[in-house]
Amino acid sequence: MHTSPYDTLCDRLGEVIDLRAAVALLQWDQEVCMPPKGAAARGRQLATLSALEHRLATSGEIGALLMALEGSPEARDVDAAKLVAEAHYDYARARRLPEVFVERFAAEQSKAYQAWVKAREESNFKTFQPHLETLLELLRQKADYLGYEGSPYNALIEDYERGMTTEQLRVIFGELAQRQSALVDRIVQAPQQPQLGWLQGEWGEEAQWALTLQVLRDMGYDFEAGRQDRSVHPFTTNFDLGDVRITTRVNERELFSCLTGSVHEGGHALYEQGFLEKDQRTLLAAAPSLGIHESQSRLWENIIGRSLPFWNYAAPLLRAAHPGKLDHITPEQIHQAINHVQPSFVRVEADECTYNLHIILRFELEVALIEGDLEAADVPEAWNAKVKQYLGLDVPNDALGCLQDIHWSHGSMGYFPTYALGNLYASQLFEQVLKDVPDVWSQVAAGEFKPLLAWLRQHVHAVGRRKMAPEIVRDATGQEPDSAAFLRYLEDKYTALYGLAK
Amino acid sequence: MHTSPYDTLCDRLGEVIDLRAAVALLQWDQEVCMPPKGAAARGRQLATLSALEHRLATSGEIGALLMALEGSPEARDVDAAKLVAEAHYDYARARRLPEVFVERFAAEQSKAYQAWVKAREESNFKTFQPHLETLLELLRQKADYLGYEGSPYNALIEDYERGMTTEQLRVIFGELAQRQSALVDRIVQAPQQPQLGWLQGEWGEEAQWALTLQVLRDMGYDFEAGRQDRSVHPFTTNFDLGDVRITTRVNERELFSCLTGSVHEGGHALYEQGFLEKDQRTLLAAAPSLGIHESQSRLWENIIGRSLPFWNYAAPLLRAAHPGKLDHITPEQIHQAINHVQPSFVRVEADECTYNLHIILRFELEVALIEGDLEAADVPEAWNAKVKQYLGLDVPNDALGCLQDIHWSHGSMGYFPTYALGNLYASQLFEQVLKDVPDVWSQVAAGEFKPLLAWLRQHVHAVGRRKMAPEIVRDATGQEPDSAAFLRYLEDKYTALYGLAK
Repeated sequence: MHTSPYDTLCDRLGEVIDLRAAVALLQWDQEVCMPPKGAAARGRQLATLSALEHRLATSGEIGALLMALEGSPEARDVDAAKLVAEAHYDYARARRLPEVFVERFAAEQSKAYQAWVKAREESNFKTFQPHLETLLELLRQKADYLGYEGSPYNALIEDYERGMTTEQLRVIFGELAQRQSALVDRIVQAPQQPQLGWLQGEWGEEAQWALTLQVLRDMGYDFEAGRQDRSVHPFTTNFDLGDVRITTRVNERELFSCLTGSVHEGGHALYEQGFLEKDQRTLLAAAPSLGIHESQSRLWENIIGRSLPFWNYAAPLLRAAHPGKLDHITPEQIHQAINHVQPSFVRVEADECTYNLHIILRFELEVALIEGDLEAADVPEAWNAKVKQYLGLDVPNDALGCLQDIHWSHGSMGYFPTYALGNLYASQLFEQVLKDVPDVWSQVAAGEFKPLLAWLRQHVHAVGRRKMAPEIVRDATGQEPDSAAFLRYLEDKYTALYGLAK
Repeated sequence: MHTSPYDTLCDRLGEVIDLRAAVALLQWDQEVCMPPKGAAARGRQLATLSALEHRLATSGEIGALLMALEGSPEARDVDAAKLVAEAHYDYARARRLPEVFVERFAAEQSKAYQAWVKAREESNFKTFQPHLETLLELLRQKADYLGYEGSPYNALIEDYERGMTTEQLRVIFGELAQRQSALVDRIVQAPQQPQLGWLQGEWGEEAQWALTLQVLRDMGYDFEAGRQDRSVHPFTTNFDLGDVRITTRVNERELFSCLTGSVHEGGHALYEQGFLEKDQRTLLAAAPSLGIHESQSRLWENIIGRSLPFWNYAAPLLRAAHPGKLDHITPEQIHQAINHVQPSFVRVEADECTYNLHIILRFELEVALIEGDLEAADVPEAWNAKVKQYLGLDVPNDALGCLQDIHWSHGSMGYFPTYALGNLYASQLFEQVLKDVPDVWSQVAAGEFKPLLAWLRQHVHAVGRRKMAPEIVRDATGQEPDSAAFLRYLEDKYTALYGLAK
């Protein structure tokens, strides 16, 4: 029996995917199930499996198979050709980093992470600074290994948002920063502010949990192919399109954070449950970028989950979950409260109007750090100046300032922009939904999410990795990625909510 | 920096252990958490990781390191020397099976399992018979590859109970069969039978669950290094001595099965939590045989958990768990009910007096099949004859007869005897406990299990794989493994319980 090079390649890549799934399960279990004394061994298990995965993914055998398949008639259909091309891309990119570099990077990451934890506890950037310096050096080296045109930051972006450049982001974010800052200024000074007093209280955890399950089910999340658990930080993971799991957190002092967290992760999960069955165990069953992945979570969490029609559907469920406590609260009151805008120090707690501003300031600092225009030592000062500029706030300390995010301690630069891009893509996609499914809002108000999901399945989920993010947006909407749709969405929504003059 | 061959060997073996832990987690998750649609991908992930584990464990590099270490002064202490010797044993044994054979065996296992599921549903042995024939052929081949003295069955036993032989088992089981059958006959005819009517009822699942947690905690199970979940079939697994998990099942119609299941698995788990920290991530942190592992679960489940002193401790907890329902039930009544003897068809539901008889008949059939004295086609007839001989029952159909166990469908022969050996070892060890900790029963009655656990830690758990099962028994008790202690235990206990003449 003859096995073709293409089938052998799929087998070898399938093994890499299986190992990656095992790594993902070890991580999921670590956050959701693992008892505390299992931590040390789990760290070793993750290191071993990750190293094995890298070894398999960069094996000479895969290289030889890819060579054999180049321009071969075996790439018999469009999907097979795409798969081979993408495998080639992954392989070449992974091989560009020498193994000693990968090991050194991992070791420095680990030290930097520990230093960051300490620095944040002490609220003292100086403790983290030397590690940031080392990581910056390594990141510049990484960019050199990977290769780039224009800014070295482009090489780093590619890991998270392939097809996007520093230059494009500068243009997009420049417009955003100006318009969002102006909008926030007007909102903060608006006389009409939402009533929030009724949010005080204790909201039973069981009831909150049951509500998230109901809403996820209505959205179309398949519990036969997933589950929801608790964890400190909400996340989504999958081991296959038949096993896509989400986590959320519950706090009885917070009426909405559990639900909005679930809906956000539900958006990610619907994406991963929506890959094609024929793509199972291939690299095509994946998102092409973090930004496009985030577009799905943000679309569900913000555009849908913070809309008035959604609360026409969900308010009765919320009232039933907390009997007697919310009887006189209207969908409009919820809509106002859940869209309360207030500049704050912490990105992860930011509202829709200020969120991108947090991202843009990080992007600007990262570019300056990587391009050599900013020294690590000057980060706190530069950070605080930008927070003042964009959010009008005086940062009281490093813990609430430049030490708040985990990303830099992992040596992840180029990652933050994907959060903002998610917002932009979501708005662009949803403008098209409104054209293609004109009654989508009345459907949402009736708790009917199937047509929306079907649209997303067709234009985004089923595509998998066949197209890069800009292509997905272009093919679905006829437009290049830009900030126009998002700004229209934001300005329309908040002008109405806060009674601002047009 | 020079890394010694010994350290490199430990690194390589550590990777194998990490992969095995990942496989164990994939399996645990499959039974406890996985949503149904994740099953197909999970099967592939398990196959890939198992194959990788085999590849790493039999790598030329490990072979070369072992060669380099042979008789080397580097085996600097007793533990290191033992580790190298055991690694050598594992390596040589794994290498004796050609990869094509391992693959063929796995493929036939999978087919046989599916056929067995169908055969059992239909209660029709004929559906399974051709697969059993193939597996028997492969098992004989496996024995030839592995090598043996005496019976080829010895080569198969070695996977589960190294150091035990068919010849020894024939002697031990011969005595057991005769004496246990005679005891069961007397019990069945005894005029004094336990009252069981009060066991009828509904026993709240939450209350049952909470009780198991309490008892496990009292036994010494460390919930910081483990957890209990529900699964269809109870089991224990570990990914490290800091992460030893058990599962049990709850049925509101059964007052005791959840608790006895938990105590049984708790016995296994205490063993695995009791390996030495210095043995972490080495092959020494493991049981030398399934029989010795089973001795721990049976000691806790039966010798302790079905004793009167245990129920002096546990009866108040049981009453509190089911308020108002058991107020007049005494520890003596529980003791009688929980030790009710009744010959039945199904091994996993068998009581202490009949259990080994189920094992012995399987052992005799397996030896005859492997040695060629019995044809697969004649299994049902032979099975039914032995059930009549040992248990006095007429088997109504294959589902309740020779198709009831999963083991043969996995190609596992030589496994069953370890269950009976667990009973024997447990009794031998406990006779010694009674000498070394003379007041152990009054401690148990007071819910004080620490001295018992300390004894087991010292003589069994901490040993890990430094000694084989017979050595552990010999060093702890001064005696060879035999059936005498078990028969004394059984005859004393049941003579008293059923008021039999001495």
